[in-house]
Parts: sequence; structure tokens; C-alpha cells
Amino acid sequence: MTDKASPVKPRHVDTVENWDFETDVVVVGFGGAGACSAIEAADAGASVMIFESASTSGGSTALSSAEIYMGGSGGTRVQRACGYEDKTEDMFNFLMMCGGPQADEQKIRAYCEDSVSHFDWMVAMGVPFKDSEYKERAIMAMTDDCLLYTGSEKAWPFRDHAKPCPRGHNLKVEGDNGGPLFMKIMTEQVQQRNIEIHYESRALTLVVDGDGAVVGLVVRIDGTERTVSARRGVVLCAGGFVMNEDMLKRYAPFLLQGNAPTGNPGDTGTGILMGMGAGAAAINMHEGFISLPYYPPASLTRGILVNSNGQRYINEDCYHGRVGSYTLRQPGDRIYLIFAAKDFESYQKFSYLNADIAGTGETIEELEAELNLPLGSLVETVNSYNRHAADGKDPQFHKSVEWLAPIEAPFAALDCTVGRGAFYPMFTLGGLDTRVTGEVLTPTGEAIKGLYAAGRTTAGVPRRGEGYCSGMSVGDVTYFGRRAGMAAAANK
Amino acid sequence: MTDKASPVKPRHVDTVENWDFETDVVVVGFGGAGACSAIEAADAGASVMIFESASTSGGSTALSSAEIYMGGSGGTRVQRACGYEDKTEDMFNFLMMCGGPQADEQKIRAYCEDSVSHFDWMVAMGVPFKDSEYKERAIMAMTDDCLLYTGSEKAWPFRDHAKPCPRGHNLKVEGDNGGPLFMKIMTEQVQQRNIEIHYESRALTLVVDGDGAVVGLVVRIDGTERTVSARRGVVLCAGGFVMNEDMLKRYAPFLLQGNAPTGNPGDTGTGILMGMGAGAAAINMHEGFISLPYYPPASLTRGILVNSNGQRYINEDCYHGRVGSYTLRQPGDRIYLIFAAKDFESYQKFSYLNADIAGTGETIEELEAELNLPLGSLVETVNSYNRHAADGKDPQFHKSVEWLAPIEAPFAALDCTVGRGAFYPMFTLGGLDTRVTGEVLTPTGEAIKGLYAAGRTTAGVPRRGEGYCSGMSVGDVTYFGRRAGMAAAANK
Repeated sequence: MTDKASPVKPRHVDTVENWDFETDVVVVGFGGAGACSAIEAADAGASVMIFESASTSGGSTALSSAEIYMGGSGGTRVQRACGYEDKTEDMFNFLMMCGGPQADEQKIRAYCEDSVSHFDWMVAMGVPFKDSEYKERAIMAMTDDCLLYTGSEKAWPFRDHAKPCPRGHNLKVEGDNGGPLFMKIMTEQVQQRNIEIHYESRALTLVVDGDGAVVGLVVRIDGTERTVSARRGVVLCAGGFVMNEDMLKRYAPFLLQGNAPTGNPGDTGTGILMGMGAGAAAINMHEGFISLPYYPPASLTRGILVNSNGQRYINEDCYHGRVGSYTLRQPGDRIYLIFAAKDFESYQKFSYLNADIAGTGETIEELEAELNLPLGSLVETVNSYNRHAADGKDPQFHKSVEWLAPIEAPFAALDCTVGRGAFYPMFTLGGLDTRVTGEVLTPTGEAIKGLYAAGRTTAGVPRRGEGYCSGMSVGDVTYFGRRAGMAAAANK
Repeated sequence: MTDKASPVKPRHVDTVENWDFETDVVVVGFGGAGACSAIEAADAGASVMIFESASTSGGSTALSSAEIYMGGSGGTRVQRACGYEDKTEDMFNFLMMCGGPQADEQKIRAYCEDSVSHFDWMVAMGVPFKDSEYKERAIMAMTDDCLLYTGSEKAWPFRDHAKPCPRGHNLKVEGDNGGPLFMKIMTEQVQQRNIEIHYESRALTLVVDGDGAVVGLVVRIDGTERTVSARRGVVLCAGGFVMNEDMLKRYAPFLLQGNAPTGNPGDTGTGILMGMGAGAAAINMHEGFISLPYYPPASLTRGILVNSNGQRYINEDCYHGRVGSYTLRQPGDRIYLIFAAKDFESYQKFSYLNADIAGTGETIEELEAELNLPLGSLVETVNSYNRHAADGKDPQFHKSVEWLAPIEAPFAALDCTVGRGAFYPMFTLGGLDTRVTGEVLTPTGEAIKGLYAAGRTTAGVPRRGEGYCSGMSVGDVTYFGRRAGMAAAANK
């Protein structure tokens, strides 16, 4: 039984001679989802065991900024302190647009309605949020300020359908250190409860009974297979599959255009595979976050992105993940960010992008020739853009007026073409199909008894690269982690 | 046990008290894939039973034009007679581009290498192909001529990477009658063999043994469940899932933008669900063919397609399915075909499109205003297009010179916006993951013993709407149907 092949086939309970461990709720994975799930299951009176393949807690949540997307109900404490009265319907409408045809309306509804109470729960757990706002256009807050726009809320077309409000909540900690702090706090909360933690314990497969209900788990600890009875249920919180190239090829080949898999080494899809082995549907498997992080510096938002045809294709003031998704579906093979050369110094200083200069020009004609773009194409695009921008307008792509200004000569172009070095981080957004409660569903929509899942092992609120916002995954992971833990504990 | 929920969970052989039927190879579905599979299994010496839910053979193949995509190896008899010497590598490179990141190289390789012998097999079965070419740009041949271009072979970017050759083979029959004729011939071939056909027999679920191997099938005949022992294997040829709205919502919500599900009423995904229930991976489930059939008349190819920004987005000389896929991912919500009003009469006479006129204008400025497109956007697009077209050039989108000419005033625009009546037919391209042999695979790539599949129950050679060509599905269905039948018969 190899690690790779094992998860698919569940073990029948009749073949289990004895249980090495017995508990009410088994949680697989000790990242954000697993921690929240275990805490809620324990608080509901269940005995809980966590099995984690790594030697510490953390998962991909600890590697993230742990911005958390929250709002609605008049605003979280922080939103209100910063003067924002966030309506649930605005948050709901925004997230529904983000999900597009893939949106899970029931999950988004629950997520939005419970968001402020989820914030309060985090605070009760000891997660620190400062009543302050970070006003830069940034990928993350590098100060200990809390509230920031982390998606495309203020950008077209979202702003026309849902009143924009910042909903990203950054932890009160300097630098990009939210993830480690968040998981430190949650780990301490787990340790204070009746929860048995097993590190370096690799979940191998689920145990099912004759009706297909999940009744336990097989894990490998110190090279030995151990069986675990889960009297109330197993909660799979084992992350996504961005680290499993076979699965990416099979399910999400589009994502292989990215060059920076974002996650922890355990994001190999084993939770998803175990669920599928027990009869679960995996959905949205082709989708993922894939980003072109061309800001900071925010000043580059005043530039324009063009494809091999010299055409613009997006309002450059939207979220970098949305830009990444649109970028990767352009015809032709080249992508350039055209900007005023005077911004180059700040690009060098602040950017994560790692894109080289592809060309410069005193005039657009010169730049167009240097980039070998179709004759007249870039000239038309830039002239038209500049003419309208001078009037504070962007009739084609509707970039917000705050980012509109004619691009000044001399010009420069960054080479954002895939495969030429520009940074394209990515992670998966497909996984097990679950109810709001975390119950795992078959391809025809029935719940599998005893099986729950949360986090990137599932298809949750974040469903599309083009609709992603920072904080959406950790928000989903923690909220639905809690729901899954509650539901498993209640399955007596 | 409802029809909808049943397929997911296989029945354990221990619960089968007796077999109502026993045979070597069970084929589920009597469309193109099922017929070819049954014929090859029988010709390999196996006893074969077909179970078909409808009261006749045919499936979606009978509803199609039954164009078959074939070539390579120097050309089929028809290709050679028409003066084409088609190289296998050109066909292979073309199909690899069609599949893009999702391409199944092994399947494409086998499909191309065996294509001429597949043609010869068809001929031996009695399928009539005339040694003649149909030279119009059309969606299907309405004469009894055989050979036609059915994809984007001559269009950019394909033409730059693979020498174009027509590979669509239309049956020798007048009108759109290839499908019924093809299935009539194949049904007769089945009837001449040692193959037992059960109509009005709905496959409910697979029967598996303790190792997970497939050993039989449960079917419902005359309201009664019957068990079928499949000594060598079950071949699932039960079509795709375009008629199952639940499955479309779960797996391919993008396709719900189409308004004409193309297939037979049995395309409800039961074959895919049965496979998944037995542990199979379903892959490419989000993908489908979705088309904007804006030709015939071919003259409209001289028009240009623009989005809500007044921008072109594709070379209009490529295949209608590719155009449909690109159309549905445009920013904004409107799509117009801009053309010379003089072509309107021929549009009315020959088109399948059902799109209304959205506006007309003596000048482009007038049309732009009437369509309420961003000021100057359409004017720039058309002026630039016309200027280059006058020189026989399309520097941005590379439409072939044969379709390039300035669009003449007065102008008209067809409203191709989704939801306003234009015809968007669609069908699914996701299904069970199989080897070239038709062996069905688990999510980690192991074959499930005794289980085979072909046709739109699988993810085959056609993997992307944007890379589809007419004849690719019937080609895949028949070739891999044969392979699956051979493999099942050989599984002694």
C-alpha cells in the first residue's frame, strides 16, 4: 500500500481486528480548518483526536497572511470602528458575483450571515484585531493595522452591484506574520481542550461499514498502521492538492501554468482522495487561484495590461488574482504591463513580480516596435486609453477614476508572459462537495454518514480564480471548519 | 432506489442471490460507442449482451451528423482520392493543440496512428463514403459528398503548427442524415453477431466483488430488477450528462449558458455515476462543447465579432465551437456580429443562428451609437480592421486572407448576446478517466478490474470546447468503443 495509491480505497470495518484508538470525532489535518473543527467538536462535548502528518500544527494557514474575509450584519467591531456599516446583502451579492456560475449560494448565505459572530468567536479565542484601517492598495498589510480591501470590491463590475466595503481583517502583528500567529493561538486553544493530538501521523484511508458509513480511519504512526474508531465521524481537513502534480495534471492542468505552488508540502490531495474513495463527489476540480501580483507598488495600477494583440483585457484596478485568471486566457502568448518609466524605481523597490523589462520607448510607436506588437495596435490602445483617462474615463474597462491618468512618456513594458520569470503563484479551489454543515456528499447529493470535511479539501466559498479575494480561503476554512466540527459532534 | 440516486453505489456480489443473465461482456448503451464495442467484443469471440434504456438503438450518434474525424498515415482512401496526403504528425499536432493542457497524449497518439485503419474498418462494416470533397465553409455537408474541413485546421494558430488537411468524413447520404444511416448500419452489424440486445432495459448499478472488481450489472426490465453476470467485463457506453441539470450545476455550470442541450434524453450521466460509484475518477467534468453557429452563410465569416467593449476577440474564420467558447468568456455581457448589411438576405436564408438584428448604421459611428458601445470603440475596431483587411492582413487576430475584406457600409449587427435568443448548442466533454484500452481508472490511476468505458461516458480525445471539431466525438466514440470492446473480451 503506497502513500499515493492508498487513500482511494476505504477499508471495510469487518477487516479491522481491533481499534488502536477510539474517540468520538477524528480530525484529519491540523491547519486552520482542523483546529477550528476540533475546537468546536470538543466544545460540543465530543472527545476528539487530531491526526497530522507534519510534526507541528499549522498547515497552509500558518504559511498564509491569515487575512480573514468578514463583514455584513452592520459590520464587525473593526469595520464599525473604522466607519463602515457593512450590509449582509452587499457582502452576499459581492461573493455571489465572485463565485459566478460556480457559486454555492447556501454556503455564501451562511458565511455572510454568521460572519460577524465568527469574528466575535475569533476574538474570544484570543485572535487580536486592531481597530484600524490599512489604506494602501496592497496584497497584504505589512503593519499591524487590520481592515483592508482584499478583493475587487471597488472595481468594475462588482462596485455596480454591491456597495464596496473593506472586509479583509489582518491580525495585529507587524509584517507578514498573521498566519503563524493565528495558528499559534488556535493551537493553544486546542491544547486547552479535551483533544488528543497525534503528529507525524499520516492518514492512509477511511474505514467504512457495510452501509458505506464512515466509522474510522487508518493512520500510519512510526511506520506502523493504526486503526482509529470515530464514533461520531471523521472530519477531513487535509488541505488541497497543489503539491500533487499527478492530480494537477488530471484535474486542473490549467494551473500548471503557474510557477509557485502555494501551500504546505502536505497539500497532496489525500483528503480529497480519501473522500472520493468513500463515494464522495469532488467538484470544481479544474479551478484554482492563479495570480499576477503586479502591485505593490500601487502606482503600477495606473499602467495598462495588454496581450499579444496590443489589446487591454481588464480593468487594472481589480484584485491581482482576477488579473491572473484573465491573463492566462488571453489569445497569443505574450502579456505586457505598459507603464510610465518614471515608476520603474518604485517597481524595483516594492514589487514581488520578478518580471523583466521587455522594452522601453520615448514614444508608444517605439515601444510597440520594440515589443514587436502588431503595427498600430499598442499605439491605438494607449492613445485611446490616455485620451479617455485625461477625462477621468475608461469607457471600455471601467477602471476607477482614482487610478486613471494618462500614461506619461517615456514608456516601459514589463514582461508578464507566462514562463519568462514573472511570479504566478497558484493553489487549488476544487475539492469534496459538502453541505453548509460539512457533511460530505455523493455525486447525486446524498450525505455520506459519518464523513465531514472543511477547508481546501472541499469546494467552499472561494470557487474561482477570477473571483478570489485574499482572506476568503482562511475565512472559509475557519468558518466551515467550525461547522464541520459541530456537525460531527452532533452525529450521535 | 430511485433512478437518480441508484447508480452511485455498486451492489456487492454477495447480495446477489442468482444471476438472471450471464455473458462474457456486458455493454451498457447502444449508441455509437456501444455498437462498436459490442461488435469488437463479439468478433474477439466473447458472448455479448447490450442493455439499452431506449426502445431502439441510436443514442446521440444517431442524432448527430455522424461526421467522423479521420486522417493521417498518408490519408484515408477519400483523402487520397481528393488529393490530400495527410501526415499522422500533422493530425497529432493539431489534436494536441485542440486539447491544450487537457490533451490526453496517449489517446491522441493511438487515435491518429490507427485512424486510416479505423476508416477501413468502417468501410468493411458497410459505411459508405464517397471519394469527393465538400468545399463550402459549413457546419455540415448537406450533399452526399464526403471530405470537409470540420475544425479550425486552416485557422490561426493551428495552421502555423500543423499542415491543414480536411479530416471530416461525411457519409454518402443527402441532407443531415449521416447519424441515422450510420447507426442503421452498425445496428445491422450487431444483429448479425452473437450479441443479445435488450431494449427498454435501464442499467441501475454495477455489481462488484470484495476486491472492488466489476463482475456484473443490475438492470431494470419491465419494472423488475434483473442481475447480469459479466464474466469478462462491463463496458459503459451510456453517453454524457448534458440532460442532467443537477450534474451540470454540480460539475459544468459554465455550460448552463447554452440553450440547446445536444444529445439524446438518456444523456443523464448514469454511466459516469456508475463508474464513480465503483471508484472511478471522472475528469474534465467542467468542460463542454458550446457553439455559436454563425455560419452558414459563409459570407458572415467576413464580419467581425465584438464584445461589450467593441473589441474583437477571435479570428472569425475558426470553428464555430471555438468561437462559442471564446465568446462566453468575454468581459461584459454583450456580443455582436458586425457585418455588411448586404449579407442580411443570405443570413435569413441560410442561418441556424436565430439572432436578431441589434442595430444598423450608414456609418460605423451610427451603429456604435445604436448599439450603445463605448464611444469610439467600435469605430476604432472597424476602421483598424478594414484598413488592414484592404491589405489582406489581420495583424491582431490572423484571420486567413481568404476571409479578409473591408466590411462595407451600410452596416448591421446581429445580437449574439447569451440569453437573447441566439442559438448556443452544448454538450459535455467530461467523464470517466480511461486508458487507451478503455480500462477505467481510479483517481490515483489504477485500473478497476472488469470495468471499461467509451464515448461521452469518458473524457476522450475531445477535451475542450475551444478545440472541438465536428466529427471528433463520433470518431472518438467509435474508435475507443472498439478498443474497449476488444479489451473487455480479452479480460479472461
